[in-house]
Parts: sequence; structure tokens; C-alpha cells
Amino acid sequence: MAARSVNLAVIPGDGIGPEVVAEGLKVLAAAAGDDLSVATTEYDLGARRYHATGEVLPDAVEAELRGHDAILLGAVGDPSVPSGVLERGLLLRLRFAFAHYANLRPVKLYPGVATPLADRTPEDIDMLVVREGTEGPYAGMGGVMRKGTPDEIATQDSVNTRMGVERVVRYAFAKAAERPRRHLTLVHKDNVLSFAGDLWQRTVREVGAEYPQVTVDYCHVDAAAMFFVNRPERFDVIVTDNLFGDIITDIGAAVTGGIGLAASGNVNPEGDFPSMFEPVHGSAPDIAGRGVADPTATVLSAALLLEHLGLSAAARRVEAAVAEDLQVRAKEGGERSTAQIGDDLAGRVAGQG
Amino acid sequence: MAARSVNLAVIPGDGIGPEVVAEGLKVLAAAAGDDLSVATTEYDLGARRYHATGEVLPDAVEAELRGHDAILLGAVGDPSVPSGVLERGLLLRLRFAFAHYANLRPVKLYPGVATPLADRTPEDIDMLVVREGTEGPYAGMGGVMRKGTPDEIATQDSVNTRMGVERVVRYAFAKAAERPRRHLTLVHKDNVLSFAGDLWQRTVREVGAEYPQVTVDYCHVDAAAMFFVNRPERFDVIVTDNLFGDIITDIGAAVTGGIGLAASGNVNPEGDFPSMFEPVHGSAPDIAGRGVADPTATVLSAALLLEHLGLSAAARRVEAAVAEDLQVRAKEGGERSTAQIGDDLAGRVAGQG
Ligand SMILES: CC(C)[C@H](C(=O)O)[C@@H](O)C(=O)O
Ligand SMILES: CC(C)[C@H](C(=O)O)[C@@H](O)C(=O)O
Repeated sequence: MAARSVNLAVIPGDGIGPEVVAEGLKVLAAAAGDDLSVATTEYDLGARRYHATGEVLPDAVEAELRGHDAILLGAVGDPSVPSGVLERGLLLRLRFAFAHYANLRPVKLYPGVATPLADRTPEDIDMLVVREGTEGPYAGMGGVMRKGTPDEIATQDSVNTRMGVERVVRYAFAKAAERPRRHLTLVHKDNVLSFAGDLWQRTVREVGAEYPQVTVDYCHVDAAAMFFVNRPERFDVIVTDNLFGDIITDIGAAVTGGIGLAASGNVNPEGDFPSMFEPVHGSAPDIAGRGVADPTATVLSAALLLEHLGLSAAARRVEAAVAEDLQVRAKEGGERSTAQIGDDLAGRVAGQG
Repeated sequence: MAARSVNLAVIPGDGIGPEVVAEGLKVLAAAAGDDLSVATTEYDLGARRYHATGEVLPDAVEAELRGHDAILLGAVGDPSVPSGVLERGLLLRLRFAFAHYANLRPVKLYPGVATPLADRTPEDIDMLVVREGTEGPYAGMGGVMRKGTPDEIATQDSVNTRMGVERVVRYAFAKAAERPRRHLTLVHKDNVLSFAGDLWQRTVREVGAEYPQVTVDYCHVDAAAMFFVNRPERFDVIVTDNLFGDIITDIGAAVTGGIGLAASGNVNPEGDFPSMFEPVHGSAPDIAGRGVADPTATVLSAALLLEHLGLSAAARRVEAAVAEDLQVRAKEGGERSTAQIGDDLAGRVAGQG
């Protein structure tokens, strides 16, 4: 059988980004096996490039990225760059330009992983957060007037369109329909953010009519944040606004063992644009270059990438390798370097091949 | 010595509201002792009144409330009332009309209280969240166009004024300066919400110059949400936006034993308007009328009320009574009714008098 080939754009980025991406690629290669050839092109974007050239994301680079099948990103950011420059200029720009409206964030406690929660087991925490990725408070709308005076006013506008809400809601219903529990929770704050909340509620109700097999409920974001800690078993699939999703998925990362394990996919389900996969963690400049970063979140993001490309079996192999590795860690302890963890994971994936 | 007298408006509200408020008043009376006479006026507001008369908060009632020294509120809300009607029409209206810009939410783990976090002790969790209470995304600004069509757009505008931000930031610095650790953290999302974030950052920097004894740092709201779970000891005083404060204080409630213990004060520090004290929990219609609600959050809110009125010794007595009661609960277990807990707390407060 002729190998399928995938053109992958790789943005290693800053800090620990390059270290974890190297391991992500190692495991991806192992998972690809003979059925898939992964051709990678590296793009130097992030703090280094910004300092060297003043550029964040040249239009020509965006156009090149657009030509790829998918993007794997490590992490961008450094304290030396003003807050927001890379986030808005690179990450959000790509999410918006490539219509990454389904920001997928599994929140799953793997066996053996230490959770800060007492008495919680993997049965209790297994959800999928589908965070809207292209609008809401992230739209960048708003402004400031009378800046620097006692009369200054700064506004920040959340923009929610029926089109934007409906496509992510529909995606979330489809995901929920595939899971054993078939339950979807809308998380919002409709008692206060009434205009946006009403649009989300109506859209969930209307799209939900097409999915009679999926049960639906609603939860205010403040209550949801609390339930992530004291009733996580309450959730299966969650669909939510861009900002609420940002916040609750970090709680999700915390309760499932920390940001070192949290994966994400910025997905354009139609495939009109390349989807982008990245660990939820940042560039962690304090530990960069020492080979101590945990590449697991990047490896799990690579599994999401494989799944997105339709290579479900390969995705399952990567996840299974991670699950095994985490259990071995729990039993044997011991410190491994970033590269050793990557080697071990790649070995396990190959072994299952 | 002539007794000082306080005119307290009481809004028992719906569900368990009246039950917990009765106990709050009991403990307040015990704490007042001979130095303080508390005159209460009850206001029938909430779901019952809304259904009976269609009224949420008549102007005349608002004007009457204004004439009081403080307000004690139980909880309003019922599933039979459309989402937001009572929240916006009553709670937020009072917070805005009475300039409750300092929404005080202590996040404190009491000895003996079961936290869902493993291996955490009271030393780890003792913070004060100062949530802005009068603007931000709660302003109610925004709108909808092309409603019900595929082209619908709903906006929700966060409004942040220098005046509004500065007054709460100044209040938070003053609170931080009074505490042993003297540390203040600004929680925001300035890398995405750049207009508002910049105003908050500048204001904290400028007001901070007046408080050289207070150390200051900044934390993105998503990271803060995570740290509430896995590094709560990181925080002392937090100052934050209305919506971020809503979300993180519910995580705070979760990690300190649940919403049954979380107190809040909607404070107008200048005393131009009555401040309002309320438990963070809702009306819990599912357990209403059975005498099983825990009145502790209301009692702790009453302690905040005493503190606000300058009756610090009485406030300390109430807190000490709660702390003792929680330790006895932990040791002896046993179910007590709402009224029994109130009686026990009132007895302890009187005993310390
Ligand atoms: C870096 C930042 C812009 C980003 C976000 O807020 O979406 C990050 O927190 C995330 O969750 O991917
Ligand atoms: C009821 C609701 C409007 C309110 C809020 O969002 O402020 C509540 O959640 C709170 O925290 O007091």
C-alpha cells in the first residue's frame, strides 16, 4: 500500500517549545509507521524572531502555513516580549485566520497520575471541552478613550455570531453523540451576559433538536468552575465560549495532574485550513534548555493531530503509550529527561504497531 | 454606655434564603450584645414577589433600602423565574445603585473542614479576593441584531473606567497592607483583553507606588484558576475584574469546603450607600423548607457586616465561633438542623462575650 503523506508545519517556538516538539515529532514518526510519511517544515516564529526582526507573523509565512495539512506548535512567549504581542499576533491570528473554531481540550485523568483532588479516580474525570476558538471576548474588539486621564474608559467587546456559535455547537453535539454517555453541557453566564447567553442557549436548543440521543444541560461558568473541583464526574462534553473555555480548561489541567499533561487541538473541522495542535502549557523559560520539560502534553496533542487526520488507530496507539508510561512513572518514579520520555513513548508506540 | 443602634434591611429571599437568614440574625443578635442594638426591617423580594406582583425591585423599595445602615440578603432565585430577571433586576441593580465596588470574598480553609484537595491545610489557603462589583462585563452593555436569523450578532461589552478600577484597586492595596503577608495579585487576561488589561495594569502600578510595603504581582486568570487548585498558597490578596472574580471565587469556595461556607460582602467602603452581605450560595430550592441548609455562609457574611460597621471585636467573635463549630463538626460528626447550627453558633458567640 502506498504511504499516505502529510505535510506538517512545525512551530517549535520559545523556551521549552523546541524541546517538547522534538519529542512530539519522534512519537509521531513512530506512530506513523509505514502507512504514513510525515514531511515537516520548521517555522521560526516566536520571541527570538520578534527580537531579531520585529516580525511576529509575516503574511508570507501565514500563506505558507496555509498550504500545510496541519501545524504542530510547541509554545511561544517570553517575558522579554510585551504581554499580548505574540499571543495576539501569532496564536490568535492563526486561530482566527484558519477558522479554528473547535478548540478541543480533553480533560482526562490517566491512571497513576497524581491529582491534587483527594479520592478521585480516572472514572471521575473524563470530559471533552469544546471551546469556541474564533470569537467571543477574544475578538479583539473594544478600545480606550481619554487614556491616562481620570476619565479613561476601556471597553472590551465580546462578539458572538449565530454562524460562529452554531458551528461549534454542532461540532460539540457530534462529539457528544460519539461518546458513551452522550451528554452535552453548555457552560455560559446567561443570567448576566444576557445577549450572548441567549444566543448560545437558543442555538444549543435548536441544534439539539437534531441530536435527540444527546442529553443536554446548562451550567453557569462559576458553578462549572466549582464542579470541576468537587463534582467533575458531572461532565461529559462541554461546549463553551472562548474565554470561559480558556479558564475552565486550566482548572481541568490542574485536576488531571497539571499543565504538563494537557493537550489541545485548534481544529477547523472542515479541513478548509490546517488545524493546529499545541500543548496547553507555555514556554516555561525558567526550565528551558535543561531537558527537564515533560513532553507528554505535546505527545498527546500529536495524538489529537493523528485523530484529526483520520488516523484513529495511530492516535489510539499514542494515547495508549502515554497511559502506560504514566502508570510506569507512578510505580517506578525516577527522573527522566525530556528526550528519555520521548524515546520511551516512541518505543512503546512502535512496540504496539 | 449607650447602645449603638444599627438599622438593618433584611432580604430573606427564596428557597433556603429565609432559613439561613434567620440564623444569621440570631448570631448577629448574640454578637451585638449590649453594645449594639440591631433593628431589622424585612423586605419581601425575590421569586415569590415577582410571581405575585410582577415586581422585582420597585423604586420605592430601593429608596427605602438606601436609608438603612446595611443589608443582609439570603438568596434570591427560583427555576420558575427566567434566568437573569432577579439577578440583574435585584442583585446587580443593588450592587450598581449602591456602588458596591468592593465585592469581598474571603477564601479561607478552616481547620477541620474537608477540602476536596489532597494534603492541604489551613496554612495553605487563606486569601481575600477583592472582586470589582460595579462594572466590567457585568455592565449590561451590548445588544443583539438580526435576532433569530442566521446572521444574528450578539455583543456583550465590558466597560472599565479609571474611576471604577482605581477605587477597587486602592481598596485592595489597603486590605493587603493590613495583612501579614502584604501581597497583592492582579488577576486579569491582559494578553488577550488588552484595552481593559492595560487600564488595570497601569492603575495597579500607579496606586501601588503609594503602597511600597505591599508586594505586587500579576497572574492571568486561567493560570490563577489553576493555581487555586494546585498552588493556593501562592495568593494573599487578589484584585480582579467582576467576571473573573465571580469565577475564581467559586473555585475558592470549592477548595475551602464548598459553597455552604462561602461568605461575601458587597461593600461601599465610603458608606455613601448601605453595603450588602450575602452568602455566595443560591436559593437551593431542592433542599428548601427542610431545615437542612447550612447557615454558616450567612453567619460568616454577618461577620463581614460587623467588620464593615467597625465592630471588629464582634466580627472576630463570630468567626471564632464558626471556627470552633467547624472543628467540633469534624470530630463529632452528626447532623444538625439549620436552626441547631444557628443556636450552637449563637451560644458560642455569647459564651465568648
Ligand atoms: C496564550 C493565550 C492567548 C491562550 C489563550 O488564552 O487562548 C492560552 O491561554 C491558551 O489557553 O491557549
Ligand atoms: C447570581 C449572580 C448574578 C451572581 C454574580 O454573578 O455575581 C453570583 O454568581 C455571585 O457570585 O454573587
